[in-house]
Amino acid sequence: AANKNILMLPGDGVGPEVVAEVRRVADWLAAERAVGFDIAEGLVGGAAIDAEGAPISEATMQKAMDADAVLLGAVGGPKWDGLPFEQKPERALLRLRKDMELFANLRPAMVFDALVDSSSLKPDLVRGLDIMIVRELTGGVYFGEPRGIETLPDGQRRGVNTQVYTTEEIRRVAAVAFELARKRGNRVCSVEKANVMEAGVLWREEVQRLHDESYPNVELTHMYADNCAMQLVRRPKQFDVIVTDNLFGDMLSDEAAMLTGSLGMLPSASLGAADATGRRRALYEPVHGSAPDIAGQGIANPLATLLSFAMMLRYSFDLDSEARLVEQAVEAVLARGLRTADIVQEGTTTVSTREMGDALLEQL
Amino acid sequence: AANKNILMLPGDGVGPEVVAEVRRVADWLAAERAVGFDIAEGLVGGAAIDAEGAPISEATMQKAMDADAVLLGAVGGPKWDGLPFEQKPERALLRLRKDMELFANLRPAMVFDALVDSSSLKPDLVRGLDIMIVRELTGGVYFGEPRGIETLPDGQRRGVNTQVYTTEEIRRVAAVAFELARKRGNRVCSVEKANVMEAGVLWREEVQRLHDESYPNVELTHMYADNCAMQLVRRPKQFDVIVTDNLFGDMLSDEAAMLTGSLGMLPSASLGAADATGRRRALYEPVHGSAPDIAGQGIANPLATLLSFAMMLRYSFDLDSEARLVEQAVEAVLARGLRTADIVQEGTTTVSTREMGDALLEQL
Ligand SMILES: CC(C)[C@H](C(=O)O)[C@@H](O)C(=O)O
Ligand SMILES: CC(C)[C@H](C(=O)O)[C@@H](O)C(=O)O
Repeated sequence: AANKNILMLPGDGVGPEVVAEVRRVADWLAAERAVGFDIAEGLVGGAAIDAEGAPISEATMQKAMDADAVLLGAVGGPKWDGLPFEQKPERALLRLRKDMELFANLRPAMVFDALVDSSSLKPDLVRGLDIMIVRELTGGVYFGEPRGIETLPDGQRRGVNTQVYTTEEIRRVAAVAFELARKRGNRVCSVEKANVMEAGVLWREEVQRLHDESYPNVELTHMYADNCAMQLVRRPKQFDVIVTDNLFGDMLSDEAAMLTGSLGMLPSASLGAADATGRRRALYEPVHGSAPDIAGQGIANPLATLLSFAMMLRYSFDLDSEARLVEQAVEAVLARGLRTADIVQEGTTTVSTREMGDALLEQL
Repeated sequence: AANKNILMLPGDGVGPEVVAEVRRVADWLAAERAVGFDIAEGLVGGAAIDAEGAPISEATMQKAMDADAVLLGAVGGPKWDGLPFEQKPERALLRLRKDMELFANLRPAMVFDALVDSSSLKPDLVRGLDIMIVRELTGGVYFGEPRGIETLPDGQRRGVNTQVYTTEEIRRVAAVAFELARKRGNRVCSVEKANVMEAGVLWREEVQRLHDESYPNVELTHMYADNCAMQLVRRPKQFDVIVTDNLFGDMLSDEAAMLTGSLGMLPSASLGAADATGRRRALYEPVHGSAPDIAGQGIANPLATLLSFAMMLRYSFDLDSEARLVEQAVEAVLARGLRTADIVQEGTTTVSTREMGDALLEQL
């Protein structure tokens, strides 16, 4: 098989440190499991602003469009906080999502047995938690027009954004949710505010229609977004797959992530549509941010990025057994009691980013 | 002083049961503390749909506009779930908010010492929790135009809503938050998605400007809504007053409510602007819904509605010592170990709605 082209965009803060460990694991896989990777690197976020004058250059965008998969570290930091809206590091994320048409953002929220006590929630409520949130990522209020700030005749200002979804946008992301559910608990909960927003009424109707037409055997329920925000706290294990729009998904996936108590462990995948050859654009990144407060100290947790790479193996390259290998290595090092500073517990050994990488390679 | 005109709208499900207990407390206050109330009742929600053909009749709307304060129970239930968008029981809430111009929704999330263990969160994280969320209630995507569902030439449908805020809408609700903060912990956290939405950029700028002009001694911070959804789970006690828009406020106030583990205890107030005489329209209601599953059984918790009435005494009638009297009675019955079924714990006595009301009157 041809080599897989991976573009790595380490970005800012702890991004470069955690991506470096993934690169070592990728090299190991290439050497030991005869999986061929061609790995290129590029600049993104603040790093790209500083070196190239924009949060992502046209050349890097092109590489991302052409790659078989992209691995992103993190973007942003206090250095670039003062920049206006259109020039901030985060614009690179929005540009990548939009231009690559990454409409389905997969955000697993799972609790590793070894880390149950890290949660804010009582252990019984989160032990074994395994939710998959599917967030629509290229539509809704993030990209809707008209948008902007105008000055009114009386001197007041008015800020406008537009929430908008079409049948096709809803169906394609819902299909991803139903497909995933089939391989998991077979249950999808679709979340909107159909009691207040027409865009939510449409969302509910289209998800229901796709279900009835093509996925009648998957259990489908509907829930209002405010209730979902509650239920995630009350009894998170009631959920299997949640599918929701861009803005609700932004909040609910972060809330769900925090329920696990260990952001440093959570991966994500953002997927486009498959073309005729089955190839789909895809970007993988850890849920945690650039963590400027600990950047450069070599203490960041590389596991979320590594698990994002495992998602890449599974969803972009169909290398399920290699993905499992990586995931099992992560569980094994946790079981051995190794912890980076963010997930340290009594009776465990605190290790650096690099030492965690060493332990993983050893394990593999 | 002239009698206070209160309109009670018991509504659906457990609404009538819990409002009945408040009425008894109001009668007690009138008799014992020489506070004159003229209490009228009206229909709202499903009850109004069934009897009057609309979720709220024009006559009831007029009474609400004229009242010194409105106390609402709850609306909705399975019987009316199938109705189209514009005819649902919830429309009455949106109509009341909009026509009465109740732009500031006060949603305290507090944990009573006796109920710390009801929370999903570990006790240390929530003991003493006392957050005040101020949610903008008459603007944003709830009411923005254009809105609706249209059919496109290719047969697809398109659902649209508009998020919109003006300078004045932002300033008046932020002012409420700053005023409240001054009487509490003196800290306001303003929440939006200024990294993605221009309406959020405007929100942040206007809140900051009002702060600098008029409330420079209140500590003001800004936070993205997704981060706030996380931080509420991670370390809820970091917050004093949170001010945010209608949609974010809907989700965040419900999430915060569920952190306390006892929805049956949480009141709310929705306030309009004060006129030249200092009078402001206001509506008070419990945070919990109509709970159709337990309606009619006489086991619902009347305390959230009673605490909403206490907020009425404080915010509408300036009867701070009467408000405190009611709040202290609530704490006292909890301390005596009395619990309705929703907050029952080991070693406590389960009482009915009416028995809880009896205990409160006895306490008073
Ligand atoms: C950085 C920001 C633009 C982004 C978003 O809101 O989508 C982030 O919160 C995320 O969820 O990836
Ligand atoms: C019933 C619904 C319209 C309402 C809202 O979304 O505002 C409710 O969730 C609330 O928070 O009072």
